[in-house]
Amino acid sequence: MTDKKAFKPCDLVLFGALGDLSRRKLLISLYRLENANLIEPDTRIIGVDRHEHDNAQFVAIAYKSLQEFLTDELDDAIWQRFSARLAYLQIDLTQAEQYKKLKTVTDSKTRVLVNYFAVSPFLFKSICQGLHQSGILTPESRMVMEKPIGHNLKSSKDINDEVAKVFNEDQVFRIDHYLGKETVLNLLALRFANSIFTTNWNHNTIDHIQITVAEEVGIEGRWEYFDKTGQLRDMVQNHLLQILTFIAMEPPVNLEAESIHNEKIKVLKALRPITVNNVEEKTVRGQYTSGYLKGNAVPGYLEEEGANTESTTESFVALRVDIDNWRWAGVPFYLRTGKRMFGKRTEIVVYFKQLPHNIFKDSFRDLPPNKLIIHLQPNEGVEIEMLNKIPGIDEHIKLKKTKLDLSFSEAFKQSRIFGGYEKLVLEAMRGNPTLFLSRAEIEQAWAWIDSIQDAWRHSNSAPKSYPAGSWGPVASVALVARDGRAWEE
Amino acid sequence: MTDKKAFKPCDLVLFGALGDLSRRKLLISLYRLENANLIEPDTRIIGVDRHEHDNAQFVAIAYKSLQEFLTDELDDAIWQRFSARLAYLQIDLTQAEQYKKLKTVTDSKTRVLVNYFAVSPFLFKSICQGLHQSGILTPESRMVMEKPIGHNLKSSKDINDEVAKVFNEDQVFRIDHYLGKETVLNLLALRFANSIFTTNWNHNTIDHIQITVAEEVGIEGRWEYFDKTGQLRDMVQNHLLQILTFIAMEPPVNLEAESIHNEKIKVLKALRPITVNNVEEKTVRGQYTSGYLKGNAVPGYLEEEGANTESTTESFVALRVDIDNWRWAGVPFYLRTGKRMFGKRTEIVVYFKQLPHNIFKDSFRDLPPNKLIIHLQPNEGVEIEMLNKIPGIDEHIKLKKTKLDLSFSEAFKQSRIFGGYEKLVLEAMRGNPTLFLSRAEIEQAWAWIDSIQDAWRHSNSAPKSYPAGSWGPVASVALVARDGRAWEE
Repeated sequence: MTDKKAFKPCDLVLFGALGDLSRRKLLISLYRLENANLIEPDTRIIGVDRHEHDNAQFVAIAYKSLQEFLTDELDDAIWQRFSARLAYLQIDLTQAEQYKKLKTVTDSKTRVLVNYFAVSPFLFKSICQGLHQSGILTPESRMVMEKPIGHNLKSSKDINDEVAKVFNEDQVFRIDHYLGKETVLNLLALRFANSIFTTNWNHNTIDHIQITVAEEVGIEGRWEYFDKTGQLRDMVQNHLLQILTFIAMEPPVNLEAESIHNEKIKVLKALRPITVNNVEEKTVRGQYTSGYLKGNAVPGYLEEEGANTESTTESFVALRVDIDNWRWAGVPFYLRTGKRMFGKRTEIVVYFKQLPHNIFKDSFRDLPPNKLIIHLQPNEGVEIEMLNKIPGIDEHIKLKKTKLDLSFSEAFKQSRIFGGYEKLVLEAMRGNPTLFLSRAEIEQAWAWIDSIQDAWRHSNSAPKSYPAGSWGPVASVALVARDGRAWEE
Repeated sequence: MTDKKAFKPCDLVLFGALGDLSRRKLLISLYRLENANLIEPDTRIIGVDRHEHDNAQFVAIAYKSLQEFLTDELDDAIWQRFSARLAYLQIDLTQAEQYKKLKTVTDSKTRVLVNYFAVSPFLFKSICQGLHQSGILTPESRMVMEKPIGHNLKSSKDINDEVAKVFNEDQVFRIDHYLGKETVLNLLALRFANSIFTTNWNHNTIDHIQITVAEEVGIEGRWEYFDKTGQLRDMVQNHLLQILTFIAMEPPVNLEAESIHNEKIKVLKALRPITVNNVEEKTVRGQYTSGYLKGNAVPGYLEEEGANTESTTESFVALRVDIDNWRWAGVPFYLRTGKRMFGKRTEIVVYFKQLPHNIFKDSFRDLPPNKLIIHLQPNEGVEIEMLNKIPGIDEHIKLKKTKLDLSFSEAFKQSRIFGGYEKLVLEAMRGNPTLFLSRAEIEQAWAWIDSIQDAWRHSNSAPKSYPAGSWGPVASVALVARDGRAWEE
């Protein structure tokens, strides 16, 4: 029952320590964990990259990264403690014999080796083999990787196969940083600790569910990468499907990793396939044209730097997802995500069913259904939209939509809200796999996504255009309107 | 759909116009309705009492009452408009022939005669007969009365019989001022306009319900009246049972008076009788002894002015009420009400059932159930107590009780909150009987209360004592503790 369980210290090896992910996210998160006193005293952080640097130079790079990307004040005492953990090794990751250098700084007797693969996936095989040949791996060692884990089922399997040659599945920690978000974790509490939701959480009372992940950003210098990927693979395969599984899964027996992973896979297996037969009615692809965002003119997707002007890659996708199981029969999940949209907004909206009989016709010809709104971005929080009587002395009872509000930053003023990366990097160091993705999950998700990609390829239709700064193509509105519904405003 | 439906103007006759109820409540409410522009322009207010006054003297008394009891500012223009409606008639209410005087000021052709009986019930018969003989009653005329409508089923029937000789049931408006409270009316909206509650509102998901009406006041100069009555008859027979029916009733077909009255009666008929066989386990009677309230010493019930020191009248009562119908089988309603209690508080707490399985044992060995808390006094509002994850990076998911809050004064800042009397006096003038009590309801409630009084008489046990400023006798705690439950703190 204590939080202060002693975790074993780690040798945390950051492969790609000088790269973007490491400098913008990982070093920042680690510093913040240091600041919160959450890193074991004997844990060491070893940067590995191909450039020739010594420890001092790496420390200087880390310092500069913090100055640049840390939003909090940089505390000198914390920095002293943090920087004392840092070391650097120059390794050409493609040269297996160079991995022996790791022996000089790691100690498998007293510390757990945690290898963070913050590099492009084409290097994963080399790193796995180099680590293997170096002889420093033990059954306790871990590896951490994140998306893209492949761009389809086959390439994902290839990566997982290479990793599996060296690491057992229980040593592999696959990150989706959405699973580190407070509100996503709070879904477990909302759903499984509150009877007012638990008893309602099915097709009897829920009409449909919407998941929106709207980005304001465009492609910004990574056009080539993105164009090969598209929004479906870049966002839906991982983040949106992860949110969906947390909303849709059956109650797990307990909070252990295996129990939760099993329930998530059951949801993914129950996703009704989208194929050439139904792709037109179930999906909308969009691509932004030039437009205005918060008053500023922004270029269209095909006008971005480095663009191939004939690209048909989608920067927006809307889906109607059906889950073929007992709980969700007849309850569609509408997903939409896009770049250059009207605002940055990540939210889940659970629409309850309309009541069977309306005795308040003087207020509403149709009673608006209750909604549970779960905000992930920009602010995290939970709201229930319901109807209450307007106080007053009118002849008839007049109702009005009102919100019961639980904003996290308000309700939990004392608690610091940790970012997703901090949470997940810490859990990787602790060795708790609950919030990471299993191989089976990733591959199940890819199989479902591949079917959509195949169907799109067959249909050969171009994406619908939408102006930057809008909520996506009009076809997205039509997707839900056909079912007599509307996107949450 | 309009609120501005023209209502017919009234001759509102206040019998007992110089008495407490009239001066403290009715004139104040009428002034406030005037201020809100809710009284028909041609409506007249006729004070009737036994003292010799002219119109000007009555206007002066009304002005003094407003100065004394109106909490808002007295607006001169409003007062001019209001006082122009006032007239006074001296009538000895026991002298039937004197009622003819009413003919001189009322006009049944253009105005509806609304007779407000703001006098002691022993005068009701005389007033009814006087009105009848005066010849001014029409089928459109109304009469308004309020508690005490009898002190048991027989005396209540006597009153209703006398009234029924002159007024049809649809002309009779019986007031319970709790039914004018915003939050009580909002119960209809909460229950019948919100699927998150409607679908849960039964024995499958609700564990039990508590209704508390705690008063700080003692007996204050009306010992003799109260001692003949007791808390059960003074508060439970009317206010608490009325709240209970609003919580427990089946969905009415519509909001018309007959539909709602019928559903309320069905609840009252389903109350399991409390008799000599179960009175000891279902009820607790209490009587306060001297104590401290907010730091001030206050006398005990038997030390109040005018007290008969051998009285066994209860100033506190707690009940376990069972409703024998499909919806509420196995769901007890715990009621408690008392004088000289720790604080002034009127609230309804709906305890949902505990979840069948707890996956958050690290936070709670037993998961606390969700609660819906409906505050009526001192502030009106609705809260849901639920569990959320504490933001943070703990090894285990930690939960905390949090509240989704809808405080009326916050949520509806623009709306003025009207008092119960204002609402009900207005509805009586409008002729809308929905929020008034039918004869059948009152008599059903009395039959149930009489059985408890009989059982107490048979058992002959003295009330349990509790110190003024406490939450009642310990036996009240035991009443719910026997069922493994506890009163809301």
